[in-house]
Amino acid sequence: MNLKKIAGFAAAEEIKDGQIIGLGTGSTTHYFIEKIGSRMKEEEMNLMGVPTSYQSFLLAKEWKIHVTTLEEHDVDIAVDGADEIDPDFNLIKGGGAAHTLEKIVDYSANELIIIADNSKMVDQLGKFPVPLEIISESTKPVFSALKDMGADPQIRMAKYKDGPVITDSGNFVVDAAFHTIENPIQLEKDLNSIPGVVENGIFSQMVDKVILGTNEGVKVLK
Amino acid sequence: MNLKKIAGFAAAEEIKDGQIIGLGTGSTTHYFIEKIGSRMKEEEMNLMGVPTSYQSFLLAKEWKIHVTTLEEHDVDIAVDGADEIDPDFNLIKGGGAAHTLEKIVDYSANELIIIADNSKMVDQLGKFPVPLEIISESTKPVFSALKDMGADPQIRMAKYKDGPVITDSGNFVVDAAFHTIENPIQLEKDLNSIPGVVENGIFSQMVDKVILGTNEGVKVLK
Repeated sequence: MNLKKIAGFAAAEEIKDGQIIGLGTGSTTHYFIEKIGSRMKEEEMNLMGVPTSYQSFLLAKEWKIHVTTLEEHDVDIAVDGADEIDPDFNLIKGGGAAHTLEKIVDYSANELIIIADNSKMVDQLGKFPVPLEIISESTKPVFSALKDMGADPQIRMAKYKDGPVITDSGNFVVDAAFHTIENPIQLEKDLNSIPGVVENGIFSQMVDKVILGTNEGVKVLK
Repeated sequence: MNLKKIAGFAAAEEIKDGQIIGLGTGSTTHYFIEKIGSRMKEEEMNLMGVPTSYQSFLLAKEWKIHVTTLEEHDVDIAVDGADEIDPDFNLIKGGGAAHTLEKIVDYSANELIIIADNSKMVDQLGKFPVPLEIISESTKPVFSALKDMGADPQIRMAKYKDGPVITDSGNFVVDAAFHTIENPIQLEKDLNSIPGVVENGIFSQMVDKVILGTNEGVKVLK
């Protein structure tokens, strides 16, 4: 069973005609976008999407979902993936390096649904390193601040270009391994206070609902 | 009397041979850079500068100050300007839209000296709008968050290009008029917690010394 697919498809069933949808980035939201694209066609629904990355923009275009922006429309509902989800619905995101725009769109949405396979549920955040988008000139002082906070930071290197990954906004990504995170709400604020950090991948206190794909089917947590 | 010039020149006298210097941006630091350039030549000093903008980079080159980066050297002393300075040495900066890299360099410096004419000293911060560097896609939700915090935000428009000012990092600048700021330390953190805000122009708890140009001469505050 494709756990990402059943979660993504289940979230697509929650969408109502006329809604403005925040389109998350990644392999699970891929299925969500595919399914709302086919629902739009079959049910003649009138929907618009606000992409959170160039990837989700292209996918929306492929499925003929009208694309709009936060300038033009408020987002009714955003559907996004996650790398880790804790029992209080705090998240680590940014494995796809899209967390800055994801946070902008998800935060502005009236409702935020997170979709994932159930391996993403954890008792405590931190096994997955926290992705940070940073201004390139700040790499050394940001590393120093992260080490003072107990993290082991690494610049994310690209696979299909030489040197570091560059985000859609032109910045570097640092993966900061904390191993265990006691207080994600505080850490989210502290990381954004480091000069040079554009945005960090902790999403605390934002999620309304989690839809998990499990081997026993879809599981909805509120 | 040129108050910016006497402050900038006085700060340049504090520099010692062999130091790595953070080079602030703006009309007052302009005089500082000019003076360390001439001191280097006359006294055969060996100094290096870490620029905080393309402007200060060019000025350093003009005065034949060797330019380096935070990757290569730790900053011994940074000298920078300010738009407002309160009695606790909290600042508003960013009139020149360089506050993101300024904060990165100033924060990493072992010592930070602020230079200004004495009109920049205020009892309470806030008359000068707080500049924010933001991801362009976040303009509407950032405006909404700022209004909820009691500010009157405006996108800074360019003079010699059509449309908005674009920072050296490729982002927009929002000037958020708060009029009075009760708690700059808290506001600095809160502003950086808004998704889309790269960095804000409040610099709290960072300054070691203020050198003011006054009509009675240079005044040093510690």
